[in-house]
Amino acid sequence: MPTIKYYLREGLLPAGVLTSPNQAHYDEEHLRRLRLVRALVDVGGLSIAAVREVLAVIDTREESLHTKLGTVQEAISRPSAAEFDPLAVKDVQEFCDRHGAPEGFDIAGSGVTQMLAAALSAARSIGHDHFQQLLEPYLEGLRIIARADLEYIARLGSRDAVIEGMVVGTLIGDEVLKALRRLVHAQVSRELVETDSR
Amino acid sequence: MPTIKYYLREGLLPAGVLTSPNQAHYDEEHLRRLRLVRALVDVGGLSIAAVREVLAVIDTREESLHTKLGTVQEAISRPSAAEFDPLAVKDVQEFCDRHGAPEGFDIAGSGVTQMLAAALSAARSIGHDHFQQLLEPYLEGLRIIARADLEYIARLGSRDAVIEGMVVGTLIGDEVLKALRRLVHAQVSRELVETDSR
Repeated sequence: MPTIKYYLREGLLPAGVLTSPNQAHYDEEHLRRLRLVRALVDVGGLSIAAVREVLAVIDTREESLHTKLGTVQEAISRPSAAEFDPLAVKDVQEFCDRHGAPEGFDIAGSGVTQMLAAALSAARSIGHDHFQQLLEPYLEGLRIIARADLEYIARLGSRDAVIEGMVVGTLIGDEVLKALRRLVHAQVSRELVETDSR
Repeated sequence: MPTIKYYLREGLLPAGVLTSPNQAHYDEEHLRRLRLVRALVDVGGLSIAAVREVLAVIDTREESLHTKLGTVQEAISRPSAAEFDPLAVKDVQEFCDRHGAPEGFDIAGSGVTQMLAAALSAARSIGHDHFQQLLEPYLEGLRIIARADLEYIARLGSRDAVIEGMVVGTLIGDEVLKALRRLVHAQVSRELVETDSR
């Protein structure tokens, strides 16, 4: 497969054990790593440089699981734009203060809070100045969702599987939530506006 | 601005009223349309062809608001891949049956259910065969989120503003939810695995 050769060349996969000049043997760990790289590239849309960064974090041994999960998550979290409306930044800061954001989540240093500020800035740029009102109900719904996510990955077993599950679950979960939210919109819309005459 | 000229040339914006050979006047409706096109392109990442499709739906007059919201939503919902695992399709079908999916949401005809099936197929392709277990808790959380979304757009006023709000709120909301879910992960992770020794 040309893709595997490409990943090998880019140093994203360790070399297999040569069994003949043209054949290499890949074990279970190789396959797991290949699947992870594929998920990052195909589902997460990450660049090769970003994939390399995620793998480097995963391969660092000396950290607590919680710290490592946080570092991996930062590596897969990049704002869609680098334009921040100061008012949107203020909204994010206030929201984080209000909910006791975990250490490390400051607007300057965290890709996650930058994602949030970039999205609220985009809303403001097209006249949606009150979009931040949605943060509170979103948080309420996401508490249920995030708890299920963490329970899912905790069941995966080994430390490596949990970290891989966090990456995969975050990126594939994004897509599942996008689709499912649209399905639920259709249901709730029927309830709320079917009799609306606008 | 070259972007406006490009949008004009592509027929995404109506021509302004010429006030001199080199100047055209654009009214409030033009600006609203420009903002919407920008949101679709910059935030939603839609192609010009997809934007044209969304605008055509918005400009069709003779439909109920609920029907129109559904049609617009389909126009901004495309699966990230076209590879479907038959088992993932079965999971989506069963989930939709279980929750009384609204008419029109069948796996063959709906971009939304295809998004869901594509995401679950991606999970299966990398060994996550039980990802569909998350659909139920996701649905529970999304009911809270979708209700807030619909209340937000219902407050926007005119029929056009509501339809624009649905498009903008869906696409920007995707980004806000992505970021916020990562923040909540960090919080829940602290609660669940901080004392875990893996």
